[in-house]
Amino acid sequence: MKNITSDTAYQYEVAFQVRDYECDLQGVVNNAVYLHYLEHARHEFLYAKGIDFAGLHAKGKDLVLIRIEADYKLPLRSRDRFVVRMNIIREGRLRLVFLQDLYRLPDEKLVLRAKATGVCVQNGKPTLFEEVNRAFFSSASS
Amino acid sequence: MKNITSDTAYQYEVAFQVRDYECDLQGVVNNAVYLHYLEHARHEFLYAKGIDFAGLHAKGKDLVLIRIEADYKLPLRSRDRFVVRMNIIREGRLRLVFLQDLYRLPDEKLVLRAKATGVCVQNGKPTLFEEVNRAFFSSASS
Amino acid sequence: MKNITSDTAYQYEVAFQVRDYECDLQGVVNNAVYLHYLEHARHEFLYAKGIDFAGLHAKGKDLVLIRIEADYKLPLRSRDRFVVRMNIIREGRLRLVFLQDLYRLPDEKLVLRAKATGVCVQNGKPTLFEEVNRAFFSSASS
Amino acid sequence: MKNITSDTAYQYEVAFQVRDYECDLQGVVNNAVYLHYLEHARHEFLYAKGIDFAGLHAKGKDLVLIRIEADYKLPLRSRDRFVVRMNIIREGRLRLVFLQDLYRLPDEKLVLRAKATGVCVQNGKPTLFEEVNRAFFSSASS
Repeated sequence: MKNITSDTAYQYEVAFQVRDYECDLQGVVNNAVYLHYLEHARHEFLYAKGIDFAGLHAKGKDLVLIRIEADYKLPLRSRDRFVVRMNIIREGRLRLVFLQDLYRLPDEKLVLRAKATGVCVQNGKPTLFEEVNRAFFSSASS
Repeated sequence: MKNITSDTAYQYEVAFQVRDYECDLQGVVNNAVYLHYLEHARHEFLYAKGIDFAGLHAKGKDLVLIRIEADYKLPLRSRDRFVVRMNIIREGRLRLVFLQDLYRLPDEKLVLRAKATGVCVQNGKPTLFEEVNRAFFSSASS
Repeated sequence: MKNITSDTAYQYEVAFQVRDYECDLQGVVNNAVYLHYLEHARHEFLYAKGIDFAGLHAKGKDLVLIRIEADYKLPLRSRDRFVVRMNIIREGRLRLVFLQDLYRLPDEKLVLRAKATGVCVQNGKPTLFEEVNRAFFSSASS
Repeated sequence: MKNITSDTAYQYEVAFQVRDYECDLQGVVNNAVYLHYLEHARHEFLYAKGIDFAGLHAKGKDLVLIRIEADYKLPLRSRDRFVVRMNIIREGRLRLVFLQDLYRLPDEKLVLRAKATGVCVQNGKPTLFEEVNRAFFSSASS
């Protein structure tokens, strides 16, 4: 997954702190818990752009994860503070790709690098929700 | 919570085995995970009686937990096998009380003793679903 | 559990926000997740008093939950903000009792009222850690 | 991840059933929960070969996940039965790669295809534990 993350700037970030119940018998955050962190960070990013994950579901419109790739670089431990920084890009017509990097604070060490690919689904069919397109990909800036 | 569990017989039981991700940094099953075990055991008991928790929800009928009491007697560890044994009784007209005891296998040591109280809710109002009444409390035996 | 919580003042509080992965198929926070919230709140309270749960464990000293009681009053949903407010009292010589009330924000509605009882354990034996006694129960104020 | 899974035979499989608490507000198993399933399946596979994950940790020897790739093909729902089938291969001298496919039962539809890469770590250094080498990669068959 080299080079897929823009090393210049991130569009959004969400700060966290490890809670003890997230650690497993090895004394470090369990591997599955990072997917919870990544999901929460994506939902916060979406919400900041006016897109409410739970609200969409209530209207029969779902954002669905279809692929995850993650490289675990460093373990997080009890009470560690960290931040998930991310960008969103489009792959093809329908795929939304979140490039998500997790850094420990305050030393800024890279903990996990992930690529999460999702699609919008309505009535069982992949589509691109207008609100998602408008929020992230419309060239309103020109 | 002495004497609330019939020491004679249980109506239903569900067998489990501890999965490593359920253990926390103390190397034992995390306290919250037992509520997952208890919930799953209740849903299996209900299902065995013809009541499908998710199916009911899809019809706007929800089983809702209103109180939990649990005494933690012994910690469970990686790979421990155990069983949740339980009875259901009615408290008042609307409350369903599950008396749930969790035993480690094969030594039958008591791990946790719990009392979980729930109600049926439809359109925001507590009620007693006919299917629940029929399954557990009808005196069809006479 | 009437009257067990001082209605006058709380010693400590921790603020949270519901993350979507904490909600179950009923669209509300799953009952077991509240025990995670309560545990995290207790660990934060302890930490504020100089007691590090994970650090103690590394020294062979464990804080262990032996009983939980909780009344679920109101469901939390996606993105709800809330706070856990609490007091600690001693019961007998060894039991530490956390009286924990969870309020939704900003409307301050009571969501859950809990009583969590724990003990300090070292070498398999219940004891009262000196650092815990000093932090919470020494009458240094007189 | 085409062609990485041998379509001929799997070395091991573990059967599961979805528990209701594993489903999120979309009514399907949450994406992070699949990593719990995969981890549990790996630990069962290891155990069947005489390798105890928790026991190794107690001796200062840890199996650590360094990369996960997963394609989500189909959602699992309440009470769905499924199986995780898998093979283990070595990549380079130190990397253990689990190729794990999750199938719904009884219809055998592919739900998730994953590649989980791990290493053995002792005293902070990657190594290959002798017991792991013996269990999976020794050519004792010749």
